[in-house]
Amino acid sequence: MIDLIKNYSTMGRRIKKSVIRELLSLTSKPGLISFAGGLPSGELFPVDQLQDITNQLFKDKPEVILQYGATEGYMPLREEIVRLMQNKGYDITIENILITSASQQGIDMTAKLFVDLSDPVFIELPSYPGGIGSLASCGAHFVGIPIDDEGIRTDFLEEKLKTMSKDGEHYKLIYVIPDFQNPSGVTMSLKRRERLVELSHIYNFLVIEDTPYRDLRYEGEAMPSLFQLTEPSNVISLHSFSKVLVPGFRLGWICAHPSIIKKLAVFKQSIDLCTPYFNQAIAAEYLRRDLLQEHIDEILPVYKAKRDVMLNSLSEFMPDEITWTHPEGGLFLWVNLPEHMDAEKFFYEAINRKVAYVTGSAFHFDGSGGNHMRLNFSYPTEEEIRIGIKRLADLLKEKL
Amino acid sequence: MIDLIKNYSTMGRRIKKSVIRELLSLTSKPGLISFAGGLPSGELFPVDQLQDITNQLFKDKPEVILQYGATEGYMPLREEIVRLMQNKGYDITIENILITSASQQGIDMTAKLFVDLSDPVFIELPSYPGGIGSLASCGAHFVGIPIDDEGIRTDFLEEKLKTMSKDGEHYKLIYVIPDFQNPSGVTMSLKRRERLVELSHIYNFLVIEDTPYRDLRYEGEAMPSLFQLTEPSNVISLHSFSKVLVPGFRLGWICAHPSIIKKLAVFKQSIDLCTPYFNQAIAAEYLRRDLLQEHIDEILPVYKAKRDVMLNSLSEFMPDEITWTHPEGGLFLWVNLPEHMDAEKFFYEAINRKVAYVTGSAFHFDGSGGNHMRLNFSYPTEEEIRIGIKRLADLLKEKL
Repeated sequence: MIDLIKNYSTMGRRIKKSVIRELLSLTSKPGLISFAGGLPSGELFPVDQLQDITNQLFKDKPEVILQYGATEGYMPLREEIVRLMQNKGYDITIENILITSASQQGIDMTAKLFVDLSDPVFIELPSYPGGIGSLASCGAHFVGIPIDDEGIRTDFLEEKLKTMSKDGEHYKLIYVIPDFQNPSGVTMSLKRRERLVELSHIYNFLVIEDTPYRDLRYEGEAMPSLFQLTEPSNVISLHSFSKVLVPGFRLGWICAHPSIIKKLAVFKQSIDLCTPYFNQAIAAEYLRRDLLQEHIDEILPVYKAKRDVMLNSLSEFMPDEITWTHPEGGLFLWVNLPEHMDAEKFFYEAINRKVAYVTGSAFHFDGSGGNHMRLNFSYPTEEEIRIGIKRLADLLKEKL
Repeated sequence: MIDLIKNYSTMGRRIKKSVIRELLSLTSKPGLISFAGGLPSGELFPVDQLQDITNQLFKDKPEVILQYGATEGYMPLREEIVRLMQNKGYDITIENILITSASQQGIDMTAKLFVDLSDPVFIELPSYPGGIGSLASCGAHFVGIPIDDEGIRTDFLEEKLKTMSKDGEHYKLIYVIPDFQNPSGVTMSLKRRERLVELSHIYNFLVIEDTPYRDLRYEGEAMPSLFQLTEPSNVISLHSFSKVLVPGFRLGWICAHPSIIKKLAVFKQSIDLCTPYFNQAIAAEYLRRDLLQEHIDEILPVYKAKRDVMLNSLSEFMPDEITWTHPEGGLFLWVNLPEHMDAEKFFYEAINRKVAYVTGSAFHFDGSGGNHMRLNFSYPTEEEIRIGIKRLADLLKEKL
């Protein structure tokens, strides 16, 4: 056999196993309550409606939905997405829309389109491991920007931009999750949003805005997306059907300037020709029937109740030294342990006590953040949440 | 707006519009007979069976098929693929199988895993534009190897390997389509297959074997795949459901050494998390019911008849100076014009006469091959084939 390792490309050599992936494989033990995943709740899937639509499509246009299709996406789906976004105040046309195999592909294509080996890339501390992974495979040299309860610290970013500009460093982009951030659950304030977009104009960099949880808001007012705050756009906006419809279709879209969409479409041609028309056609008909908002309205109270049970259980069981975020939406909250603690160290002990979380270091490109845990509240039942938080609290009390 | 072109990565700057893609957009004129596409015939899709299976899955396991899934693929599908391949004599287990979003993703992931900017890559002259595109986006420095009616000229390859080894050049891989090659329709002889695999051991390079048409054989005996000819494996074998089931699911698989599969699975995690479980579950059940070979047996006589009509029409109408290949399977044949002719030059004239083909230069990384045309016989009807070939022959007679 030939020497594979010698033959891997620079990109190939930079592909690293994901910590979460390794840990998640341990969380399927019977009786274990897992706050580790990021799955939407399967019992909420609109199965009957999707089945009805699928049957209609098999009857009406089998030769369309089962055939190859345009790389940009199934036209009726692009049109429905434009209608959806226009109703939310976006000033766009189909030229701004490219269908992707969920937002992970959006991140990955964007990363590969812009990032070369050693290019500085700004990223939130903490951030989504799938974003870190895609950018890292391209060779990103990460510059971490801390967040607080208003989201990314734009003052810190500005300092970095100033220094780097002075030093002649060529930064290209920032990757952010403004709404109910994964993993922290924090939402970027309007002031920070405006400042971030302003900085992108002053210092000439692209903003990649990842918004998979944006429509899952349980309280408070929706903030304008970064894409909506600037014109002409310095923002590439990534969207997903995974959290508001189903993840199993692997569907999402990129909303960006038409010249970027055109370039991405040519790129996608060589990546996978197109996202399945079969899945796209089902989603298009689902939107055409105006079922999405109806479905989201069904999800929201369920997830809100689960979030509340988790917040209440944390208040009830956790020792005083432990704090956590209060997410206004999304799937996750973020637990802060005292500085000296490392959640990775007692992960296996937690597994033995039949409760799982993801350690904070998985969300930091530099392996820091061990004194944090990400907890998911969308997948477990309310009862499981109470019991699981109790188990976790008991463990932490011993560790303190 | 920021200066996008300045900000594209090396990969981004290498992404180029596809000639075929541009040309195909012209071929939807009413009344136009297109030999330009590569589509399987939609009227053959097993719609009723797929609908029945989909309904069963919606009923039996909606929360599995609509949820996120393992990056390596839906386990029942991987198991069915192993059964399928073992029945054909492959010595493999599920450790050798990764599910992909059709074989285009297989090509693209493999290209990105191995090819760095300026890496020499051997490629057939002519070859599949989607393969050329993926490899080119990684920065492949192509070394073209001509083919004849036995497939790739291994003597020519050996000469190149000798020279390059002497010069200390670090070649890594070859990309080939051994069965009913796209675009030529030529099948690699057993002798050439054995020699290619032998050379891969002597000169230490990987063979990427793309086999989307392999099961569409209308005459002659199936040849062992390159993967079957070597142990331990120097071959990565790419497979697709697009031509034998439906393209609209975007499903295929990579068969390779377990260490490569493991690496590719980590890579795919950051590319798209996983291929849709929804589509994978339908295909798995289709295979479990033993419907695939039954369906292929239905397709074969239809495509064979279309191929024969095309061959007969060419014999009947074409002037003596024109020759063509006699494919034993697949979707395409390859027309040779006299050296001085350039099929690109009268493409628009052909469109005006309501017949379309793809010019040979689209299949040559170096833009040569203009004195060829690729003709597809799977999509048009038999009547359209006769009329279309007559139109093309009339045009060529004038041009000669």
